[in-house]
Amino acid sequence: MKIVLDAMGGDYGVQPIVEGLISALKKENFSPIIVGDSKEIEKFVPQELKSKIQVIHCNDYIAMHDHASSATKRKESSIYVGMELLREGEADAIVSAGHSGATMSLATLRLGRIQGVSRPAICTMMPTSIEGKYSLILDAGANTDCKPEYLLDFALMGYEYAKGVMGIPHPKVGLLSNGEEDIKGNELTKETFPLLKNYDFFIGNVEGKNIFDGSVDVVVCDGFIGNLVLKSSEGVASAISKMLKQEIKKSIFSMLGAMLMRNAFKALKARTDHSEYGGAPLLGVNKTVIISHGSSNARAIECAIYQAIHTLKANVCDKIRKSFESIER
Amino acid sequence: MKIVLDAMGGDYGVQPIVEGLISALKKENFSPIIVGDSKEIEKFVPQELKSKIQVIHCNDYIAMHDHASSATKRKESSIYVGMELLREGEADAIVSAGHSGATMSLATLRLGRIQGVSRPAICTMMPTSIEGKYSLILDAGANTDCKPEYLLDFALMGYEYAKGVMGIPHPKVGLLSNGEEDIKGNELTKETFPLLKNYDFFIGNVEGKNIFDGSVDVVVCDGFIGNLVLKSSEGVASAISKMLKQEIKKSIFSMLGAMLMRNAFKALKARTDHSEYGGAPLLGVNKTVIISHGSSNARAIECAIYQAIHTLKANVCDKIRKSFESIER
Repeated sequence: MKIVLDAMGGDYGVQPIVEGLISALKKENFSPIIVGDSKEIEKFVPQELKSKIQVIHCNDYIAMHDHASSATKRKESSIYVGMELLREGEADAIVSAGHSGATMSLATLRLGRIQGVSRPAICTMMPTSIEGKYSLILDAGANTDCKPEYLLDFALMGYEYAKGVMGIPHPKVGLLSNGEEDIKGNELTKETFPLLKNYDFFIGNVEGKNIFDGSVDVVVCDGFIGNLVLKSSEGVASAISKMLKQEIKKSIFSMLGAMLMRNAFKALKARTDHSEYGGAPLLGVNKTVIISHGSSNARAIECAIYQAIHTLKANVCDKIRKSFESIER
Repeated sequence: MKIVLDAMGGDYGVQPIVEGLISALKKENFSPIIVGDSKEIEKFVPQELKSKIQVIHCNDYIAMHDHASSATKRKESSIYVGMELLREGEADAIVSAGHSGATMSLATLRLGRIQGVSRPAICTMMPTSIEGKYSLILDAGANTDCKPEYLLDFALMGYEYAKGVMGIPHPKVGLLSNGEEDIKGNELTKETFPLLKNYDFFIGNVEGKNIFDGSVDVVVCDGFIGNLVLKSSEGVASAISKMLKQEIKKSIFSMLGAMLMRNAFKALKARTDHSEYGGAPLLGVNKTVIISHGSSNARAIECAIYQAIHTLKANVCDKIRKSFESIER
């Protein structure tokens, strides 16, 4: 299993990327190829791992402020070079915390879409109030304006991923809407509903709260809304944490209580920490592509590598391919 | 100041509505008119308040499962009778925890839109991590599919409400989008951006997280997204609370800590509790209409009445009217 790691374009430079790789290498068996500024990368690779990690030097990388459209022309950029390794069959998966727009457009254009998939989608895992249970939301940001058939595709891809990677035998798929009743929705979801209605996995419209209560496994929406819901949720969690800290500081009893609750808070943090879910797979392209937060720390990169491995082991691309072959349209 | 209270259609029946009214009467000076099943209502009105509370009996009410469109025909329903009191000038504001679709359509059709307003919008207050600071989000659910000019109207109305009722001298208005950069957005927000660009109050695109960090006062979006963000946020808050309770139960130290932190948790709950914000005003109609959660408890109804009073005192309808008079289109 060969996994390409894009060392460039993350908010905190090369260090967390390499460190995440080193941690992953201790636990999983795979062959890493790391693309980017070799001088920078080698700073962080310990001597004993140098033979295990293949470094491919690249002169260029796509920065966060660059336009995604420029990515296809910048053939010496790390993400371009990495993607070509997948295209040429030299590697099986890629993980990048760089410019996500560039990663998406290169994946779509250079690796190609799986036959029948109208648009690849970013699939993000969300924690729920049921311990050990997660929900998937897709599209989480790849496609701002969608058509009903895209949303149908997202449902099918999310279903396969939930089954294959998360090991849910019969994933429940819901359409994100402003009410649970069948008639609720905006123009897009109302047109999507009949396309999904006949699938056994479809449980109907779901509401924002259902993403977090464990009642649905796969939540389907357009990428604009997926992104908003994701960032709003992060915003709420962060606001609650800040508010609680403010309230704790107001009394000595609370401060003492908070000390006693340290482990509970730590566990809560782990359950809601994005780093632990790894990155988000871009589903619908011909190879395994994992997109990580620009702000990924080493732990997030490590988990994103595990996610690439699980996705490969579960043959998600093949399963999506088969699922789309069998659809009559 | 005459305020109509719709006693009917709430999830918990007449009791919390009447109790909320009684609490509000202790603190504020206003003349209440309560519409609904008089027999039910009178059960909860203490003898000494019977002269203070005018009860108007109605034979009918719009239940949650009824279609909003039927509301205009059911002239004996409590919300219809209540709305007519406003229309005829017999009352100044109405508060309802009943069928919100029915309230909206009756308000729009019977009270009429303020000249120039394309669509009335539900305006909801959200807590932020800055103590005492709230943000407004509109539309929170009245209009699922919007045009750019609706969003411009929402911005203008939200600005007036933030200034008048919340007392913010120069409210900052942001357009909810999938990134802060000007070029980010979906078709709708990209077309809305240029309409807002020249207003001094407009601070550009804002992200989901900004709703909760105090960096923006008024967040503008379509009603489908507003509803999703609202319900997702409630879902996150509720999931975090459940997770923390689960973690606390795992250790005796945490349980002890949680006891010591009781006041901090209480304060946090108060800061994030929807009941405390009252209901959501429907902005853009000719009178003050406050829409409360169907699941409102007595405290939520009490706060919704205060909100009606503040909205009346601030002359929000007049201010919106003036603001729309001065726009050249």
